Amino acid sequence: MNVTVCGRTRHYRTVTFDPARNTVLLVEQRLLPHEFKIVAAQNFRETARAIHDMIVRGAGAIGAAAAYGLAQGALVFRGHDLQKFHRHIDTVYQTLKTARPTAVNPVNAMNSVRIEMRAGQTVEEQQKLALAAAEEFANEDVRHCEAIGRHGARLIRNGMKILTHCNAGWLAFVDVGTATAPMYAAQARGKKFHVFCDETRPRSQGATLTAWELAQQKISHQIIADNAAGHLMQRGEINLVIVGGDRALGRTGEVANKIGTYTRAVLAKRHGIPFYAAIPLSTIDWHLKSGFDIPIEERHEREVLGAWGVESSLKSKVQSPKLAKRVYIRVANPTSRARNPGFDVTPPELITGIITPVGIFKPKELWQRRCDLGFAG
Amino acid sequence: MNVTVCGRTRHYRTVTFDPARNTVLLVEQRLLPHEFKIVAAQNFRETARAIHDMIVRGAGAIGAAAAYGLAQGALVFRGHDLQKFHRHIDTVYQTLKTARPTAVNPVNAMNSVRIEMRAGQTVEEQQKLALAAAEEFANEDVRHCEAIGRHGARLIRNGMKILTHCNAGWLAFVDVGTATAPMYAAQARGKKFHVFCDETRPRSQGATLTAWELAQQKISHQIIADNAAGHLMQRGEINLVIVGGDRALGRTGEVANKIGTYTRAVLAKRHGIPFYAAIPLSTIDWHLKSGFDIPIEERHEREVLGAWGVESSLKSKVQSPKLAKRVYIRVANPTSRARNPGFDVTPPELITGIITPVGIFKPKELWQRRCDLGFAG
Repeated sequence: MNVTVCGRTRHYRTVTFDPARNTVLLVEQRLLPHEFKIVAAQNFRETARAIHDMIVRGAGAIGAAAAYGLAQGALVFRGHDLQKFHRHIDTVYQTLKTARPTAVNPVNAMNSVRIEMRAGQTVEEQQKLALAAAEEFANEDVRHCEAIGRHGARLIRNGMKILTHCNAGWLAFVDVGTATAPMYAAQARGKKFHVFCDETRPRSQGATLTAWELAQQKISHQIIADNAAGHLMQRGEINLVIVGGDRALGRTGEVANKIGTYTRAVLAKRHGIPFYAAIPLSTIDWHLKSGFDIPIEERHEREVLGAWGVESSLKSKVQSPKLAKRVYIRVANPTSRARNPGFDVTPPELITGIITPVGIFKPKELWQRRCDLGFAG
Repeated sequence: MNVTVCGRTRHYRTVTFDPARNTVLLVEQRLLPHEFKIVAAQNFRETARAIHDMIVRGAGAIGAAAAYGLAQGALVFRGHDLQKFHRHIDTVYQTLKTARPTAVNPVNAMNSVRIEMRAGQTVEEQQKLALAAAEEFANEDVRHCEAIGRHGARLIRNGMKILTHCNAGWLAFVDVGTATAPMYAAQARGKKFHVFCDETRPRSQGATLTAWELAQQKISHQIIADNAAGHLMQRGEINLVIVGGDRALGRTGEVANKIGTYTRAVLAKRHGIPFYAAIPLSTIDWHLKSGFDIPIEERHEREVLGAWGVESSLKSKVQSPKLAKRVYIRVANPTSRARNPGFDVTPPELITGIITPVGIFKPKELWQRRCDLGFAG
């Protein structure tokens, strides 16, 4: 999407590849929203480290980074011995896989690259095919997000006030995003609307990443405390909720997403406000039979006990990259501990629809439409 | 309640008076939870400044501080001329009143002191009566909170997990508190239970003040992000919700309280979890006919856009008063704005009961029982 730096607006993807220098280019997400910077990972080990250190995060984005990382690793191989080449590829694969051991997207992305490259007869052919497959993986991620945008845009009418939670934006994918895709598509069609970004404690991805994205795209928005959504709904100030999804169960229609999503769905139901989850097909889990079987990650308590930000005079509203030294402060009572579940599960009866690249479905329709939705079981 | 400083445990009230030095002694709440300190306001102007600067905050606590401040002002008067004395008292009254112009508690507290002192025939007699009336105001605040504790304690059973929101603890009153009163009373009866403190963004009173109180009282507790309550309820980990109340409508049973309270009530209803608001009688508004008429304060956006805390190495868990320099950090995107409603209104159908010093009532019973509840209309 567009980013304006020093008055110049340019289009960026979260993850791209520079074939001339054999480098993976990444938006350094740990500095956002205080500083925008592109980081070049010079070799596959640096790409793995960038995934591990969360310079790049988000399902689609780390998938593409791993796909490019595999191609990057393939391209440095010198020689014609296919066996040696494949042993080298195994090393690259394992290095990138262990960067985020619990994430499935890097593995799926690299598997698709490996399958494509095997069509080549020589090392050189396989190297070329690896790069083409990585590019195709990234492009498909973008096309799918654009398709989510096309389907979702018709939910947005002029004058609407939309609530979103966490960041399911272009920073989490290669471009466009999922929950944000309908907003960007509606904006392109000239629609006027306003977005409330839930702060999304404890990591504040709504206040930092989503608000930054919307500001860059010049979409009218305000950040609210996570406590305020209920009040705004009660006073009729929210017309539509769109969130992302970390895992959607194809058999039940349940959606696991960032902690707090379930609360938004309960509130939306009470107020008769449509509640949508926007997801790529890779997010659908066709195996699990109950949302209670989804393991809920218990994250480090320091996230709840404090906050990350930049020191700031209360009067300064101007972004100054030179002052952007991010610090952690302890907010909570020093002798207290915290619980920190990272995700929650929203049942299908609270979800108006699931926006996919193929179309918008009621949660219970996912299983009926499983062939269209890529079920390979 | 009890506070342990350097290994020594002592009982403190939030507000007390030292007649020997004619000073008002206040817990410096702006330093909590990182540092515990008693501040001495040497004269009524310093007491007014302490109220204005929020060294003391919370309905009951600022009422008592103003009552003591009025007595403090009365006691410095030298002479026997009653007319001059009353002109002096007017100055003291106005100074304390304007310290927090929208709060009703200081005005009500000072009015009760003024009525009592008028029974004296001489300046000296009126001075003595003023001090006695201020002491009585503070003692009554404590007795009412203790009565809330007695009534509420029977809701707490062994092994329960209780959710509370914001701080309606002893720091907001002279002692004991309202939402916390049933917990302290249950603890005194030997009951074992666990408390989840909502962080309560944007000002984090749950993570700072309530967690500090519970830690000092050695009550088992954990802080959670405001987003986590719904998930914990869904997984059966919360059995009871007790919150405070800033205003309860005697005619409708609606309760206005810190932003996010309504959301807890909606979630509790969905999961069949009892939801109680604990309030002193002074909180009941017998005039308003609808919760929609309660003005909802829109607070400064910097509260949502950042956080206050102390710089801290991630590894340090030890409270070190010497390091307790509180800083504000900007968390959110620097070019985004925020909405910040400070309160919300919970309708009676979501409230299981209202815990008062007189007993526990269903919201709709307040009006029927208005004579017992001090309705003077």
